[in-house]
Amino acid sequence: MSVATGPSNGEPVNGLHSSRTERLVKWAHSLSCDDLPADAVERCKAFFIDWLACAVAGRDHPSVKAMVEYTQAMGPSTGRCEVVGYPGLTTSAAFAALVNGASSHVVEQDDLHNSSMMHPATVIYPTAVAVAQDVGATGKEFITACVVGYEFACRAGEFLGKAHYENFHTTATTGVLGAAATAAYLLRLTPDQFLSSIGTAGTQAAGLWQFLLDATHSKQVHTAQACAGGVFSAYVSRSGLMGPHDILQGRRGMAATLASVDPDPSFIDAQLGKKWSVLESSFKWHASCRHTHPSVDALLALMEEEKIAAGDIESITAHTYQAAINVLSLSAAGETVHQSKFSMGFVLAVAAKNGSAKITDFTEQALLDPELRALQKRVTMVFDPEIDAVFPAKWLGKVIVTTKQGRTVSKSVDVVKGDPGWTLTKDEIEAKAISLARYGHVRDLSLFEATVRKIWRLEAEKKIEGLVFS
Amino acid sequence: MSVATGPSNGEPVNGLHSSRTERLVKWAHSLSCDDLPADAVERCKAFFIDWLACAVAGRDHPSVKAMVEYTQAMGPSTGRCEVVGYPGLTTSAAFAALVNGASSHVVEQDDLHNSSMMHPATVIYPTAVAVAQDVGATGKEFITACVVGYEFACRAGEFLGKAHYENFHTTATTGVLGAAATAAYLLRLTPDQFLSSIGTAGTQAAGLWQFLLDATHSKQVHTAQACAGGVFSAYVSRSGLMGPHDILQGRRGMAATLASVDPDPSFIDAQLGKKWSVLESSFKWHASCRHTHPSVDALLALMEEEKIAAGDIESITAHTYQAAINVLSLSAAGETVHQSKFSMGFVLAVAAKNGSAKITDFTEQALLDPELRALQKRVTMVFDPEIDAVFPAKWLGKVIVTTKQGRTVSKSVDVVKGDPGWTLTKDEIEAKAISLARYGHVRDLSLFEATVRKIWRLEAEKKIEGLVFS
Repeated sequence: MSVATGPSNGEPVNGLHSSRTERLVKWAHSLSCDDLPADAVERCKAFFIDWLACAVAGRDHPSVKAMVEYTQAMGPSTGRCEVVGYPGLTTSAAFAALVNGASSHVVEQDDLHNSSMMHPATVIYPTAVAVAQDVGATGKEFITACVVGYEFACRAGEFLGKAHYENFHTTATTGVLGAAATAAYLLRLTPDQFLSSIGTAGTQAAGLWQFLLDATHSKQVHTAQACAGGVFSAYVSRSGLMGPHDILQGRRGMAATLASVDPDPSFIDAQLGKKWSVLESSFKWHASCRHTHPSVDALLALMEEEKIAAGDIESITAHTYQAAINVLSLSAAGETVHQSKFSMGFVLAVAAKNGSAKITDFTEQALLDPELRALQKRVTMVFDPEIDAVFPAKWLGKVIVTTKQGRTVSKSVDVVKGDPGWTLTKDEIEAKAISLARYGHVRDLSLFEATVRKIWRLEAEKKIEGLVFS
Repeated sequence: MSVATGPSNGEPVNGLHSSRTERLVKWAHSLSCDDLPADAVERCKAFFIDWLACAVAGRDHPSVKAMVEYTQAMGPSTGRCEVVGYPGLTTSAAFAALVNGASSHVVEQDDLHNSSMMHPATVIYPTAVAVAQDVGATGKEFITACVVGYEFACRAGEFLGKAHYENFHTTATTGVLGAAATAAYLLRLTPDQFLSSIGTAGTQAAGLWQFLLDATHSKQVHTAQACAGGVFSAYVSRSGLMGPHDILQGRRGMAATLASVDPDPSFIDAQLGKKWSVLESSFKWHASCRHTHPSVDALLALMEEEKIAAGDIESITAHTYQAAINVLSLSAAGETVHQSKFSMGFVLAVAAKNGSAKITDFTEQALLDPELRALQKRVTMVFDPEIDAVFPAKWLGKVIVTTKQGRTVSKSVDVVKGDPGWTLTKDEIEAKAISLARYGHVRDLSLFEATVRKIWRLEAEKKIEGLVFS
């Protein structure tokens, strides 16, 4: 092997060809709220409500409290940005994004963009709220910035695909790109600065799955740092720090390094202005890992159709795709409340016994329930090649139940509750939010309800405020 | 494939076996300055001086200025921690570590730990200074914390090895572990908290090489964020945030995910208290990428021995290892001052013409020198299997020069100036530092010299202070 070291090596000078990422940046930079279809605006507001409720519900988690203490130790004593669920605490955009990024991912009720396998809201809204409050953005600017953030995070997640998700927590690794885009939009960066922001964010992309093995708190660290990293990337880009121009497709960029197979680059910039990631995202109805939802819905439907009670069940076999097995088998034991939401066995046991898998179904008490633990042991996940072949475009579920009476019955589902094809009604969105706010022991629910009403008419708001509840 | 989902899957419960990382943590936690050999203490102080000079020299870089603006926008208005080279600016530990991590890596004169291929000082000292100033640590505690940080960063880098370095900027990815260890030591974390700090740091490990292709500023982002991430990890661990217990060797940890071949785990905890990473690290004598140094030293020696002038050289062939080719071929053009230090062709041209590759040899003016550009084009790197086979344990260099008169001569070197086997004298260390301080236009060099003298007797100091120069 021999390498000439002069300036002309046949490559574009400095690698500065126009990239798909650049095309996406230019499109995002020139987007305005009036360009958005009405249903995208509605969905964006709905996810904002859903996100806010998640952040309130998660506010007391040890990981969130640790980041609040960090904010108090390292940040300014006061600032323009609110920390959801911490009345009296105001800070700078970086710290607000950090804490709100952690709290909104704790209770596993935040949204999911199916085909990218990433949770956009928990990285986009904390960043949008923080930067919007920092610069005094309007409701319309906020909505557009969130829609832009969804496009970057979800398109990058679709591009990097299953091979990436196998090793990395995509919510973090492409989340930081979405956060950087949201912040860049709100800071009104030039296209060059915007592109630098994406490059600087991508070179920091991180988030491993190791935490699932010992039920530690990295999932919240990942979302918190994706938000903080996005804020950092946009602000330093505004100040002149240059980031790589083609972080997604470059020879040493994210795809080349963090995904083991060649991904399809058209995901990055196909159908701009026609395909909206925010409209492709699902609400989470159950409070468990999204990989359990198809099985939960199949089980609940089967038990109802076949009139099976929890006590009748001898065993459950859940057919699923490889990514679900990879993630869920790491936390099969379900030893903490959070880990129990990532145990297919425990989640299906809960669903069978309670007829639901709500946030109030996963408690310290439930962990000690011998009936749940016994049924958990009789659940088996199996790899199903047909289901795997269409994942993540479709998240299919199939369960086979054998009863103590010797009957074997099965049920498949192809759309789960909360999916774009079976989305929540406005009433269901609000009911879920109120239930989460109650879980987060909001003292005066009418204040929370007033904020929800205000978000429904966010296009008319002059600023983003009032997200703190005692 | 079938996976039982109950609590007993044959693995240690929650993955909580005692890991090599845990052994390293326990050793580090109980280390005191009196346990350190005298030469390790001396070297640690020498690298502190060397590091400080690098930070001063790099203070005006756009990436550093951007982070200073970020600090002013997001941090407290005042704090206990100094930002090197920014008189009047004090801040919290997180921001001080961030800015000092960037500035000390700009001029490519900071140290290198050969066998891990990582630059420890630029991630360890910023963190140590920031946290020591935050908690009021003594000189002895500071020295021990730095030695501890070197062990984590360098051992992890040796463990992850060449396969990791091929895709990741190890200075960042294992640097964050070293920074977390340094901060954990100074915060007097319990062993459990210390281990959490390492796990939380490791799950955030990031840093891609894409920036080399377009001469953007990620190299400074990587070191800055490694420092900030290390500070974050230690402080939130103290507040109760739990990190993965076996982030290096775990099934979904750094080796499994970020290195493509099975590494040798004994690097993590072999010869604790006997092998000292700080003593294995090299000073950088030349101001270019360390991968060019063996070739520079071989070329300078050859030109002297054979009485060859720059004008006599028809062509230079530099024999090297694959990692050098991987890194340097990305920046072969050498279009900016920083990128020119990563161009083997440009660096050897500079060395041939000037007889040195000092910081003052790489300038905007040099980039426009037609003589340098012409010679740059006549340099070729070739892969040498014998040199590659012993890398990174040894960084060998060999150059072949053909003169215009038709003579072909060659020279090999196995130790380069600054290596542990040919380390700098105290006078050389000080001379290099003064020259860097001058480059960083320190107004009163006698103040800088006084700080250097103070660092030489750091064991007796009650606190770490006085690192700011106008």
